[in-house]
Amino acid sequence: MPEILKLKSPADFIGRQGAGVISFGSGQPDLPPPKEAFDGIDLKRDLRYGLIQGELKLREALAKEYPGSTAENFVITNGASEALDLIFRSWGKGGKVLLPRPYYYSYPPIIELAHMVPVYTDLTDGRIDIEDFKKKVKGCRAALINSPSNPTGRVEAIETLKGIEKITQKLGVYVVSDEVYKDIIYERENYPIQGDYVITVNSFSKTYCMCGVRVGYLWSADKKVVEDVCEMKTHTSMNTNLIGQDMALSAMKTPKEYIRRQQKVWRERRDFIYKGLTELGFDLWKPEGAFYVLPKCKNARKFLSVLYQEYKVITYLGEWFGAPDRIRLSYALDIQQIAEGLERIKQAMQKVRVF
Amino acid sequence: MPEILKLKSPADFIGRQGAGVISFGSGQPDLPPPKEAFDGIDLKRDLRYGLIQGELKLREALAKEYPGSTAENFVITNGASEALDLIFRSWGKGGKVLLPRPYYYSYPPIIELAHMVPVYTDLTDGRIDIEDFKKKVKGCRAALINSPSNPTGRVEAIETLKGIEKITQKLGVYVVSDEVYKDIIYERENYPIQGDYVITVNSFSKTYCMCGVRVGYLWSADKKVVEDVCEMKTHTSMNTNLIGQDMALSAMKTPKEYIRRQQKVWRERRDFIYKGLTELGFDLWKPEGAFYVLPKCKNARKFLSVLYQEYKVITYLGEWFGAPDRIRLSYALDIQQIAEGLERIKQAMQKVRVF
Repeated sequence: MPEILKLKSPADFIGRQGAGVISFGSGQPDLPPPKEAFDGIDLKRDLRYGLIQGELKLREALAKEYPGSTAENFVITNGASEALDLIFRSWGKGGKVLLPRPYYYSYPPIIELAHMVPVYTDLTDGRIDIEDFKKKVKGCRAALINSPSNPTGRVEAIETLKGIEKITQKLGVYVVSDEVYKDIIYERENYPIQGDYVITVNSFSKTYCMCGVRVGYLWSADKKVVEDVCEMKTHTSMNTNLIGQDMALSAMKTPKEYIRRQQKVWRERRDFIYKGLTELGFDLWKPEGAFYVLPKCKNARKFLSVLYQEYKVITYLGEWFGAPDRIRLSYALDIQQIAEGLERIKQAMQKVRVF
Repeated sequence: MPEILKLKSPADFIGRQGAGVISFGSGQPDLPPPKEAFDGIDLKRDLRYGLIQGELKLREALAKEYPGSTAENFVITNGASEALDLIFRSWGKGGKVLLPRPYYYSYPPIIELAHMVPVYTDLTDGRIDIEDFKKKVKGCRAALINSPSNPTGRVEAIETLKGIEKITQKLGVYVVSDEVYKDIIYERENYPIQGDYVITVNSFSKTYCMCGVRVGYLWSADKKVVEDVCEMKTHTSMNTNLIGQDMALSAMKTPKEYIRRQQKVWRERRDFIYKGLTELGFDLWKPEGAFYVLPKCKNARKFLSVLYQEYKVITYLGEWFGAPDRIRLSYALDIQQIAEGLERIKQAMQKVRVF
């Protein structure tokens, strides 16, 4: 038997993608950005400090996508990660934050780094149980939701999202809604959650395949939230990189047809991996958005170790996402690679009992 | 009399630079980046996530500038600001941090945001008093120094820097050395502080006039410091923007002659403003590096308000930098503008008693 790997987080796989490795690990599109993202970018623009809040033109363009908004409702950040970090830090007074579990693996550290305490509502069939949410959100300072979800691939029902709007508005609890996968939904149009206590976090990374450019943003109707975040960002990172902001603005000019074409690619891959894993006998939720599956898996760490060391296949442990009896696979790979990866998984299943 | 402005920080001047305004406020070069910064930049490079620690080629190039270093000693960050923020946050156990006062205005908030406590050693003639430093650093977790200094323009004597090396090494206290102005010293070559407990923070912003690109870095001989910072950055912002890192690497190919030419420009401006302010009767330290002066000034807030409202001249309050009896002026302006600004200051001095 190969050794059981002592991996602590997805970061431990960085640099391990060698020749012949099939990685179901990385949570990012494998496709290049649309050509529009590069249109008219002038590197020799004014490269002095920009506005901490973000370039006005970019915020004005975003305002057109958020009904009733102006540029003042947005802050441009170094990806959605920084937006989340700034929001929680700017509160800085302790308190609890409600998190659906399984969760994106950076959520608990971001909350704890802000000296707040994560509390959990366990998902039912991969989706929020509104009664449990209602019960647990009382006494919390905020809830952090993520639909479509990394790692579950699930999309919350519009009814659930409206319920969350109502409950949190009534209690005066903030809802931070991480919507970075809003343009990768297979089942319906996106429903952007609304209200006085809603803070939306978003990104250009997944929609326009430009994760390394690091441009995200937050939206809030609450002027104080925006001000506090800007005040903090003044000290912690200043303006978000200007060339990236220009590329984000250009990318927004991409015809909507591009997003539909991308969705088609993702849906084909979703169908392929879902069918493949189901046929292998895995019990998993059918993804409705994003590009992850989170099948149940016994002996997960052993299976992951065998898969990586003997079959050169990277998968992530569900325990990193609050789901210790599962493994997470990203299907940001072309169909041929997914097929080859599934074949190797099938072989590895001969060596480790996963059901 | 015009109203006394209720400005709280430099950020309150953002967006106030209209036509005819002469700003001694902004702390950044007014010149464009060297042409080398744009050489061979390919926007259509791989734009997926990069390494959290930063692009290997950039870290390898930096290692050549730090004797005995390898790429493993560096983390590339969103400017020096993020490097400082990550260092203090990654300690996360409370404790005191010693700061020379006057200080860069973001230092106390960055330390407090990391739930640490700033304590101060007051400068003597604009420089660190090594005896006071020695006394106060005992029981601190770290000291944060900045030579050349914003806002004093002073450069610490090599003897002082060696003293700090010795004291902190003996006590096992970290020295965080913010050296973003290392290439703008008028009096001598830079002396990079060294030792097991040294963490150097630097940036491409001031040397290569690319503040808005947001690329800085930290250097440490301590593997754990590097690892802890990377672990934190994984959650808070991921990799630093890739195009900016490419530009930083290209900028490093600029001939050293460029830095000498820049120094000549800065020295002329330094001489001009120092002479001008001295002739107007101001008591100030002669800058030895960076591009700031911090003259003594009575009724500072009133003077600043009159200067801005009646004479369209922006200056910053010394109190933002821990020096309530002074004002700060940046001389990142061409000589003609500095001359015009000094003329207006002369006129304003008729209205407010500054000595």
